[in-house]
Amino acid sequence: MSRTRLEQFSDAVFAVAITLLALNLAVAGPGHGPLLHQVADHWPSFVAYLVSFATIGLIWVNHHALIVNVAVVDRNLALLNLVLLLFVVLIPVDTATVAKYLALGGHDARVAVILYAAAFLGMALSFAGIFEWTLRPGRLQQPVPERGRWTARLRFGASTILYLAAIAVAFASAPVALAIIAAVPVYYIFERAPTVGSPAQR
Amino acid sequence: MSRTRLEQFSDAVFAVAITLLALNLAVAGPGHGPLLHQVADHWPSFVAYLVSFATIGLIWVNHHALIVNVAVVDRNLALLNLVLLLFVVLIPVDTATVAKYLALGGHDARVAVILYAAAFLGMALSFAGIFEWTLRPGRLQQPVPERGRWTARLRFGASTILYLAAIAVAFASAPVALAIIAAVPVYYIFERAPTVGSPAQR
Amino acid sequence: MSRTRLEQFSDAVFAVAITLLALNLAVAGPGHGPLLHQVADHWPSFVAYLVSFATIGLIWVNHHALIVNVAVVDRNLALLNLVLLLFVVLIPVDTATVAKYLALGGHDARVAVILYAAAFLGMALSFAGIFEWTLRPGRLQQPVPERGRWTARLRFGASTILYLAAIAVAFASAPVALAIIAAVPVYYIFERAPTVGSPAQR
Amino acid sequence: MSRTRLEQFSDAVFAVAITLLALNLAVAGPGHGPLLHQVADHWPSFVAYLVSFATIGLIWVNHHALIVNVAVVDRNLALLNLVLLLFVVLIPVDTATVAKYLALGGHDARVAVILYAAAFLGMALSFAGIFEWTLRPGRLQQPVPERGRWTARLRFGASTILYLAAIAVAFASAPVALAIIAAVPVYYIFERAPTVGSPAQR
Repeated sequence: MSRTRLEQFSDAVFAVAITLLALNLAVAGPGHGPLLHQVADHWPSFVAYLVSFATIGLIWVNHHALIVNVAVVDRNLALLNLVLLLFVVLIPVDTATVAKYLALGGHDARVAVILYAAAFLGMALSFAGIFEWTLRPGRLQQPVPERGRWTARLRFGASTILYLAAIAVAFASAPVALAIIAAVPVYYIFERAPTVGSPAQR
Repeated sequence: MSRTRLEQFSDAVFAVAITLLALNLAVAGPGHGPLLHQVADHWPSFVAYLVSFATIGLIWVNHHALIVNVAVVDRNLALLNLVLLLFVVLIPVDTATVAKYLALGGHDARVAVILYAAAFLGMALSFAGIFEWTLRPGRLQQPVPERGRWTARLRFGASTILYLAAIAVAFASAPVALAIIAAVPVYYIFERAPTVGSPAQR
Repeated sequence: MSRTRLEQFSDAVFAVAITLLALNLAVAGPGHGPLLHQVADHWPSFVAYLVSFATIGLIWVNHHALIVNVAVVDRNLALLNLVLLLFVVLIPVDTATVAKYLALGGHDARVAVILYAAAFLGMALSFAGIFEWTLRPGRLQQPVPERGRWTARLRFGASTILYLAAIAVAFASAPVALAIIAAVPVYYIFERAPTVGSPAQR
Repeated sequence: MSRTRLEQFSDAVFAVAITLLALNLAVAGPGHGPLLHQVADHWPSFVAYLVSFATIGLIWVNHHALIVNVAVVDRNLALLNLVLLLFVVLIPVDTATVAKYLALGGHDARVAVILYAAAFLGMALSFAGIFEWTLRPGRLQQPVPERGRWTARLRFGASTILYLAAIAVAFASAPVALAIIAAVPVYYIFERAPTVGSPAQR
């Protein structure tokens, strides 16, 4: 199997998912009050949009950094990648659910944030699965050195731990849980550890 | 015609179709009961989502394995591929129909599953057509040896037979028919026959 | 500008447009009569879906055959290509309009078919514009010989004439006009003139 | 990171956004008056569609001209590019809002046009950010000469100034502001300054 096609297909799925996110921002239109109020009342949609966009965007950056170094794409990697995408395409729907329930607060807001964190957790775990796949001999063009593995695992694993924390916190407070979820892409934006084992340029 | 562009276009169609699948999972929103109940009542949507995602995902893997070996893309292959995609883009709509009717049971649930199986059957038959196209001399970089053809036909044909069985069974029971449809991607996940005639790597 | 990126972008637009077509096939769902009746009443949607899918699919095949031979993509070609895509993305909406009005007959059905034919006419004219662009010296890797130009113009021009005819006929009969529109992709499926000036393989 | 994948992902986002634009053109369907009246009443949707399509189309052309010359894609460029795409995917929703409110006039029409101009302004500023990134040594295959920088900045900056002007004008008149927004792609269609530092062909 070719790496090109794995990337091409994944990129298209990431792109469609990221574009569908914005559809949640549509206002109801004339007859539902002044436009400025409609937009202002829509703030949870904007927050959820930004969090989801940043998270999918950073996953795309990390996905690229990992896959560009792969030597041979086999059927297992293709299947692991499909599991990752299975969670990616859930994000637009879960974002819409969070946007609908966040401002209402209460039990439903907490359920919405748990569903949202669960989709991201699934994404993080599939990504970790792909990373583990790359550790077997011969899988990467430039293998991850033995001593760099745990650093890399921690880098990728940070998001898993944060999403688990978000789920735990969501039982008490939806906004705090959402803030934890939002922290993940911010972490990856500022995280500057040298990418383990990634060749300079394809 | 270039193979790259055939793959690029097909990948985009597969990607859009697979992403649209998840839109069926959207809940009605506030005012329609507790969110947890809404999500729980949505179980047929989740089942249909998983089955459709896995099936399109595996068709994508198999499509890749077949096309990567093609030597020259001619107009006939492009047209056969369009017929395949014609059925692929029907899947999101048929998935939504199954999701709406499965829990209701009765006649309509059976009709919904038959429509769903019919779209997959069309997909399987178009795929078989593409495979037959590859058997003519000069079509593949590494041709399928004479004695490997029937093995390969059986591999691809297994899904056709299962979809026909699902349609027949659906007249009696929609859930059993759906289970048969779900078995197809599971079969292709675990199926490890050496890919006939596929070169090691593009 | 690179040909790869022009093709990549166009392919994605074609792919999204072709996949959105199928969304018109969604049934209303439970509470709107037996599913089989809903599907049967939906026949105009299926007819419009098939016509639009086949037309976009064939335009994609022809687009490929034309662009693969281009030597240098300049800004003018990029702009002409955008005009083509401007009409391509109108097709899903116009297909939905035809599907809604065809079975009703009368004045509105004729208006719907005229709008539909007009979008295809715009597509055909933009395509002819791209073809004229390719005729200037140095634009193609393998230029169209002087004597082959009119044959090629006729091949591409056939659809323009048929769409104009469909618009004229639509003032009298929507179904006949739709049949003319449907004839265009059928013509291009069976049309086997050697592609003028196309190199064997990219 | 590879330039190919940055382009591939961006192209898919541009393509999905540009195709979703047309969905705003859907008519309400039977029972909402003669189709011709529905279409005629839809003129703000057509105007907004044309403006948004042309703007995204031209941004795509300019994006290509800039990125094709990039020597090495680093994490910062990937992040800047994500910010650009964040605004691109807002366009379909803001286009729909303008289409809904433009014909109504009054305060809400002005708010709708300001939101629309703001999304384009964000797009223009992100694009300017990407341009500034390319000015650092070693970033381009063929660097922008010192004396060409301000010319290039002015070219890219023209749109920023026009969008700021549109926002200011929108407080007085929505249609005039929309005309200014529409002027931007027209400017880039006719603008023929030699592309600074772009190599002949990838």
